[in-house]
Amino acid sequence: LSHIKNIKLILEYDGTNYSGWQVQNNAKTVQGTLENALLQLTKEKIKLIGASRTDSGVHAYGQVANFNTTSSIPAIKFSYALNHFLPKDIVVKTSTEESPTFHSRFSAKGKTYTYLIFNRNVPSPLFKNRACHVPAELSFEKMRVASKHFLGRHDFKGFRTSKCGATSTIKTIQSIGFKKEEDCIHMSITGDGFLYNMVRIIAGTLIFVGMNKIEPDEIPEIIESGERKKAGKTAPACGLYLNEIYY
Amino acid sequence: LSHIKNIKLILEYDGTNYSGWQVQNNAKTVQGTLENALLQLTKEKIKLIGASRTDSGVHAYGQVANFNTTSSIPAIKFSYALNHFLPKDIVVKTSTEESPTFHSRFSAKGKTYTYLIFNRNVPSPLFKNRACHVPAELSFEKMRVASKHFLGRHDFKGFRTSKCGATSTIKTIQSIGFKKEEDCIHMSITGDGFLYNMVRIIAGTLIFVGMNKIEPDEIPEIIESGERKKAGKTAPACGLYLNEIYY
Repeated sequence: LSHIKNIKLILEYDGTNYSGWQVQNNAKTVQGTLENALLQLTKEKIKLIGASRTDSGVHAYGQVANFNTTSSIPAIKFSYALNHFLPKDIVVKTSTEESPTFHSRFSAKGKTYTYLIFNRNVPSPLFKNRACHVPAELSFEKMRVASKHFLGRHDFKGFRTSKCGATSTIKTIQSIGFKKEEDCIHMSITGDGFLYNMVRIIAGTLIFVGMNKIEPDEIPEIIESGERKKAGKTAPACGLYLNEIYY
Repeated sequence: LSHIKNIKLILEYDGTNYSGWQVQNNAKTVQGTLENALLQLTKEKIKLIGASRTDSGVHAYGQVANFNTTSSIPAIKFSYALNHFLPKDIVVKTSTEESPTFHSRFSAKGKTYTYLIFNRNVPSPLFKNRACHVPAELSFEKMRVASKHFLGRHDFKGFRTSKCGATSTIKTIQSIGFKKEEDCIHMSITGDGFLYNMVRIIAGTLIFVGMNKIEPDEIPEIIESGERKKAGKTAPACGLYLNEIYY
């Protein structure tokens, strides 16, 4: 009887040329590309479980995925071996064997996302597809103050798309960091979980704060209202990075 | 008689898809692309003078170029108008009118370049074409110590390619900065001028230091020898950024 191993992968990818994580018919996806590399490597038809179904154009420094295999390849070698079959915009950073109960999505205890805003009048060639370009002058200090209102446990039902199927909309934000390096604003947000498009709607709401369309002290009532239309626009996918997943 | 204006442009570009700055037959270049945009905008056949002839694959946050025109377009409007005719990997950040004697190359008093080294076993999809990937573990501290030996006025004749036509090889390095952010080493170097490939040879020499192929205290004799073969390899173009030019 062959031993079934549960392998965990940590992945980095540039999401620009993918229709998101999840396998779809007639579209190039990150999951599909990885499952194809697994097929070439192991000759097994493997179903990969991703921790987060990143949208088209969203990037990852630390997506996590796991799969079961009876392959005799040592767990630690999967990283190197899979990279051989992967295009340059997806890389397996590490591969390790986990207990049979490890599930990249259900075992996750928290996640950190980063959102990048490039704020100057002209767009940046070097941040093309890597940041959201906002030409209007943003008040960084107002955005920083407003961001603090998202901290803690809240019902975020106004901060998800209608496509979100989550049964509970209560989430806890543990930390939210803001820094500015030259023209680039970095928002880093850590929570126990996020609703569909939640980080991009928070980013879009903070961009509205920076543009003086929303005042920082209006954030608590916007959250409490639970109304999607009171929050800002959904900021574009290209500015979003899945940084790390905690177990 | 129409007034001749001397316009200075500050440019950002992603050099990945260009055969460098300088116009060549049958190759897409940054200068050629800009001259074509100037032709479309002004209907004049304009010769653009660039401060630095960046190589194929080298990026710029602050390349400077100037040109003469009799166009009635106000100087400050050239930025916006040219961006309309430019592809997304080149952007004019600012355009200003300078005195008739301003020459982007000959008037330059100094330059800052940045070199990025991505140091971990697997390459980074998000830094593809943006940094030099070094899989071998590098001793950051040794590199930092070694870099200080480049400071000051030296004859850098061992730190240029055979294609370099400069008559004087004596240059002064005013500052050299080293920092590490996660897996990415940033080297920032400011000098009164640089020989052809000088920054990339310094970067390559410091990579050799990081790999223990050269000791930090050997740097002064390597510089003094004036022998190209004693220095490290020329580090790849994709890690190099022309950051700023001083006048």
